[in-house]
Amino acid sequence: MRRVIPQEAATGPQAPTVTRGRLFLMPNALDLGGEAGDLRDVLPDGVLRIAARLQYWAVEDARSARAFLKRVDAVHPLSQALQALHIAEMPRPQKGRPSNSPAAARAAGDPWADLLAPAWAGHDLGVLSEAGMPGVADPGARLVDAAHRAGLEVQALPGPSSLVLALAASGLQGQQFAFVGYLPQEPDARARRIRELEAWSRKADQTQLLIETPYRNQAVLQALLAHLSPETRLSISIGLTLPGGFSRTAPVAQWRRETPTLSDRMPAVFALLGR
Amino acid sequence: MRRVIPQEAATGPQAPTVTRGRLFLMPNALDLGGEAGDLRDVLPDGVLRIAARLQYWAVEDARSARAFLKRVDAVHPLSQALQALHIAEMPRPQKGRPSNSPAAARAAGDPWADLLAPAWAGHDLGVLSEAGMPGVADPGARLVDAAHRAGLEVQALPGPSSLVLALAASGLQGQQFAFVGYLPQEPDARARRIRELEAWSRKADQTQLLIETPYRNQAVLQALLAHLSPETRLSISIGLTLPGGFSRTAPVAQWRRETPTLSDRMPAVFALLGR
Repeated sequence: MRRVIPQEAATGPQAPTVTRGRLFLMPNALDLGGEAGDLRDVLPDGVLRIAARLQYWAVEDARSARAFLKRVDAVHPLSQALQALHIAEMPRPQKGRPSNSPAAARAAGDPWADLLAPAWAGHDLGVLSEAGMPGVADPGARLVDAAHRAGLEVQALPGPSSLVLALAASGLQGQQFAFVGYLPQEPDARARRIRELEAWSRKADQTQLLIETPYRNQAVLQALLAHLSPETRLSISIGLTLPGGFSRTAPVAQWRRETPTLSDRMPAVFALLGR
Repeated sequence: MRRVIPQEAATGPQAPTVTRGRLFLMPNALDLGGEAGDLRDVLPDGVLRIAARLQYWAVEDARSARAFLKRVDAVHPLSQALQALHIAEMPRPQKGRPSNSPAAARAAGDPWADLLAPAWAGHDLGVLSEAGMPGVADPGARLVDAAHRAGLEVQALPGPSSLVLALAASGLQGQQFAFVGYLPQEPDARARRIRELEAWSRKADQTQLLIETPYRNQAVLQALLAHLSPETRLSISIGLTLPGGFSRTAPVAQWRRETPTLSDRMPAVFALLGR
């Protein structure tokens, strides 16, 4: 394995000493293919141009990657026909399983190195998730980690991230915050976890962000309203960047009085801050 | 104070029942005015169009807001001359001071309500930080909070966020992460805090992200290298989206052997994960 050479890091722009490809972390829209919105509303033109020229991709899901690239093509024609692009899928780790668990480590052997092969051969490689920024709340981080270990250049491109949008729109503490992933599904464990997050958010003055698969949106909201203190501020962001989406923040007591019925098709981010 | 009406929240797109303005959280470029890069590389066209039409702004810094709007104008002509726009500055809370401290609460009286006056009068209001997403690691969250309390609609627009870009580019744990702000400046407190963050990142498998003002980049790096364990993975992202910027991740032991000299003018994000 080749070592990173950190001293290069500080010298500013310079030509790479070897012609390896770079990893471009390409943000995706947040609509999970459910809408046919214009990508120009969520991705910078410069980023769309990069997407249009990349010929090698490592993606969370090949079908949704092709759908994304079709939408890119509608703005900037792809440099090659969609069928001629090299699109490889990343292995899927289990949700909520820490990436440095023994199981994850065993799964992290060859597939990730194989995915980097195009970069070794000098091709820039796009990394694409089903929604938002790859490597944030999805398996892409394993590939980026492998790239750093191999000394490849990594560049994250700006675009929508539901976590940051939800945090900003919450008006809760944005100087300190944590993304804690998914809640446990077992009711007692879930209740304990909710109370633990609330206590921690109060102690550390740290907004806690969590997500769920859309069909469990309402169950999570009900669990939060059942177990949080009335004065805790709870923010719900759902369908961010999508028609019908919204972000709203209120004390738990107020949400209890007027509880919305959340869509079971749009992704939601919940943010809470104990008082 | 008017109450939020959460039941509206779930019904999808609909006309507002009263003609109030909305709060648009407008992401800024990450170059702090130091570069004259093309905004189309970092902001979606649809977002630039919204920026071009907004006539009322609540901003972190008026001078940098005008510089931003000039750059917007170069892409999409502003709906009014720059001098005719209404640009008001937000109060600046002290760095590192939790927003729910008594001092912050006292400071949060009238100025925030005043800033929302245009929205009450029916005008959409842009919120702009000096860099990145307003409300994330900056004072904008107070204004958003005030807007929610007043029942105003809040919409965060997609764009660059150095924290998310740094996290994605780090390849560290992206299923759980925390942004912890700034380190203490006093050396002993700083050392303790670094060891505390490392221990917590290991225990919770939670990437810890922190920032510093650019002129202290090197001091923070040296403190991190002095107090972290050799096997802890440390990621440095500096000058994200800018020429000469980079993201690189390596174990602390490796950074110690080859320590870069970081620019004292470009913003940096440090990310660490104990093993």
